[in-house]
Amino acid sequence: MIASWIAADWGTSNLRLWAIGPEGEVIGRASSNKGMGKLDPSGYEPVLLELAEPWLGRHATDVLICGMAGARQGWVEAPYAAAPCKPAGLPPVSAPTDDPRLRVRILPGVSQSDPADVMRGEETQVAGFLAGNPAFDGILCLPGTHSKWVHVSAGEIVSFRTFMTGELFSLLSSQSVLRHALHGEGWDESAFAQAAAVAMSRPERLASSLFSLRAASLLTGLAPGTARARLSGTLIGLELAAARPYWLGQRVALIGGPLLTEPYAKALAAQGLAPEIHDGENLALAGLTAARMALA
Amino acid sequence: MIASWIAADWGTSNLRLWAIGPEGEVIGRASSNKGMGKLDPSGYEPVLLELAEPWLGRHATDVLICGMAGARQGWVEAPYAAAPCKPAGLPPVSAPTDDPRLRVRILPGVSQSDPADVMRGEETQVAGFLAGNPAFDGILCLPGTHSKWVHVSAGEIVSFRTFMTGELFSLLSSQSVLRHALHGEGWDESAFAQAAAVAMSRPERLASSLFSLRAASLLTGLAPGTARARLSGTLIGLELAAARPYWLGQRVALIGGPLLTEPYAKALAAQGLAPEIHDGENLALAGLTAARMALA
Repeated sequence: MIASWIAADWGTSNLRLWAIGPEGEVIGRASSNKGMGKLDPSGYEPVLLELAEPWLGRHATDVLICGMAGARQGWVEAPYAAAPCKPAGLPPVSAPTDDPRLRVRILPGVSQSDPADVMRGEETQVAGFLAGNPAFDGILCLPGTHSKWVHVSAGEIVSFRTFMTGELFSLLSSQSVLRHALHGEGWDESAFAQAAAVAMSRPERLASSLFSLRAASLLTGLAPGTARARLSGTLIGLELAAARPYWLGQRVALIGGPLLTEPYAKALAAQGLAPEIHDGENLALAGLTAARMALA
Repeated sequence: MIASWIAADWGTSNLRLWAIGPEGEVIGRASSNKGMGKLDPSGYEPVLLELAEPWLGRHATDVLICGMAGARQGWVEAPYAAAPCKPAGLPPVSAPTDDPRLRVRILPGVSQSDPADVMRGEETQVAGFLAGNPAFDGILCLPGTHSKWVHVSAGEIVSFRTFMTGELFSLLSSQSVLRHALHGEGWDESAFAQAAAVAMSRPERLASSLFSLRAASLLTGLAPGTARARLSGTLIGLELAAARPYWLGQRVALIGGPLLTEPYAKALAAQGLAPEIHDGENLALAGLTAARMALA
């Protein structure tokens, strides 16, 4: 089936594609682990063609991309709109292609000058969220490799902050001395809650709390599921401690997949919040659709 | 020249050997990057033989080892003495060898039950320090991959804490998204001091301070030497914030090489302290020598 256009969320680790039909319905999906981190600029078109080929007709098909494909190390660099701004505050930029069946454009990111911060991809999820909740005034939290806390008001991104929580978790659990303590199944809910509470009240203890996981594993055979929950709780607690000005007394919506949003929801619940939860994939598609309609 | 005995500091990343003559003088030195992290139990003897061969006679030569060679993943597991204890509180354990010219023993580490903590190798530097300063009452700080703060009194290790500061610096600068911002020469002293001060007063900001380095690199071309100094200052400041009960109002001695002790000395000087500085290699040898004398 030929697509009217193709939506793409091309991040550091993954690519997600939706083929959109004439009525705006999703007629096909595809995904790949060929994220920006694994590609040089010449590598994008072949990956896109391989996945999108079945949906291409004789004429050029529009492909609209959000995410890290627009980074300096990506396919082609897209600019940043400067916050405060609409989440889709600048027109997309064209990416060069050899195949005449592709007409590719990449959405800009959003930057902030003080404190210096950037996002690429999350702004499109914010746009998708606002398409369905145009009057929302509050905080969007998008957990991930680089978690974002975004203050949204009057349809604009007012300010935002990025936390390297997910990347720290990934590095510590796979590359550091803690990998020995974390190798194994399981999850300990109360260890998570306690570690989050300690990190929020004593955030400076991070580097010693981390090593304690190793020491407790050696000395008392700390279970891997408990160690992993404590690592997650420690890092998320640290993030919540710093993001307190964002969530305290605010309406908060969490955006992402359940693996990411659940621990944040639990840690926020312990602070008396009851955040709404929204699926990040759906919102990315909604944001790309809104950007497509604005172009038409 | 045949050694009377051989001293070895065998850590995670490196091995350092000293051949000791009949008068206790150093008659030879050797080192290797074949640390514990790169070896399985059968790999230790060949590495030791290759370096020590020129110093071996017909009879068995004693080799006394401190450090991670005694870890569970090392040559043979040596126990932990439980703090509070003398830094050489337990006898060494024998490591199996095939070559009859080697008689290898590994010194135990020190553990602490609450909070759970362990050290292997640093206790021997502490013993070496105490051999030269037997009346010392105060704090020893040993910066490194896993920095140690050790409260020493009446010739004993009273308590200690480990911080993963060096490992975090290494992972973040080589494996994380920050590697792009840090790639290049230089060092910015005032950026270090400012980052250390911010981390001490607002430790919870770690995960967002880190990402700011990436964002400032993208948006304003932050110099790599400034980014690296800010990363170092942030992580050392976080450590000092948590170690405050150790150093506040105390006599502090820093133990290590100049690359490690200098930034700690500067960050502590900003807090009004004037720590003594001692070379870690010399103290490891002094500690191994003291252990050897206790065995004789």
